[in-house]
Amino acid sequence: MARSQRTPLPEVDGVRLTRLPRHVGLIPDGNRRWAKERGLSVPEGYIAGVGKGLQMLQDCCDLGIEEVSLYGFTQDNTKRPKEQRMAFSGACVAFVEEALKFDIALLVVGDSTSAMFPEELKPYVKERQGSGLKVNMLVNYGWEWDLKSAFESGQKRVHDGLASRQVSRIDMVVRWGGCRRLSGFLPVQSVYSDFYVVEEYWPDYELPHFLAALAWFQTQEPTLGG
Amino acid sequence: MARSQRTPLPEVDGVRLTRLPRHVGLIPDGNRRWAKERGLSVPEGYIAGVGKGLQMLQDCCDLGIEEVSLYGFTQDNTKRPKEQRMAFSGACVAFVEEALKFDIALLVVGDSTSAMFPEELKPYVKERQGSGLKVNMLVNYGWEWDLKSAFESGQKRVHDGLASRQVSRIDMVVRWGGCRRLSGFLPVQSVYSDFYVVEEYWPDYELPHFLAALAWFQTQEPTLGG
Repeated sequence: MARSQRTPLPEVDGVRLTRLPRHVGLIPDGNRRWAKERGLSVPEGYIAGVGKGLQMLQDCCDLGIEEVSLYGFTQDNTKRPKEQRMAFSGACVAFVEEALKFDIALLVVGDSTSAMFPEELKPYVKERQGSGLKVNMLVNYGWEWDLKSAFESGQKRVHDGLASRQVSRIDMVVRWGGCRRLSGFLPVQSVYSDFYVVEEYWPDYELPHFLAALAWFQTQEPTLGG
Repeated sequence: MARSQRTPLPEVDGVRLTRLPRHVGLIPDGNRRWAKERGLSVPEGYIAGVGKGLQMLQDCCDLGIEEVSLYGFTQDNTKRPKEQRMAFSGACVAFVEEALKFDIALLVVGDSTSAMFPEELKPYVKERQGSGLKVNMLVNYGWEWDLKSAFESGQKRVHDGLASRQVSRIDMVVRWGGCRRLSGFLPVQSVYSDFYVVEEYWPDYELPHFLAALAWFQTQEPTLGG
């Protein structure tokens, strides 16, 4: 699937989008609650989420976003029951397999030395592969694992030593599912990020959620802590 | 000033508060915008903020909060014009001098080796002093400074090596002034924090802002990333 020809940015409630975030962090939360409310199984929630992830990826390509970081699953999440683990891990693999058909430059970020890390994703942990929209997929990621790498690196700047050092500073984090917390998501890249919360569950993702986040983002003055 | 006798927790819109955050992070933003809208000088904004900080401290004592971390100023902030630096630095000193009259256990957290660090606050950087509400005042604080300490510490757990290691995990961060970002606020302690934003500027602080944050907090399920 080719990246769509870039068209003028859309309007949101009569206001033209003019300033996009360069790098967006995405926390696609609410798959389990979505499934539960519909009497579906947890795995069915994650499967629904995969389709929405691909839809969102296409939306990012269409809009001309440069880089996205997507929360797959964390080392904290792997403490959940095995059925759930298999489900979210499988969902990440399925997502990546389909995502590679887009024009993206993929990097998978997470502890690949652990049995929790899916074998199929190991080719993508060392170097970014492909060209186009940079996609950083967090798989078996842990904030403590990420920071501890930096400890041992001897680098002068914290960012340069992180396990996730190939992931750049994030302009905006968008979280679906109503929770207003980062849950360990790339703490260094997010220090100055604007944070937007969508109430809807991730499997209910539609482009207008993202457009509303983008419209809000361009009203915020970037200060980088100054 | 003695800590008030602890009374039953108040009701918020007919709902009794029952579950308080143990540790609250406070980002008292909006002093400059508040001053500007009133045709006042920037220093006048910070002075107004000091009074509100003391009011909030009393409110935390009355409610029975155990620990608060308060964003004074950051190393990023010190790049601002000298008049502003003098104003926010002086405001932090004035706040601490008055706060010490409360029953609090004070710790000042920040790079005290820099000329930007106010001399008057140096006695409070090594060890927490006093008893009662734990107050962590961030003065000339920098997230990178904080994390870099951990690099050199050789500690196994990230938290144990931080310059701010005496500051515990934060349950909820409340930010005044409408911005939805952490701006480098204690990134490790905030990894799992719930984040509540008050639209009003900090010098307009009133107890109902905080009560609304607390009422929201107790509707959130703590998961610590799980």
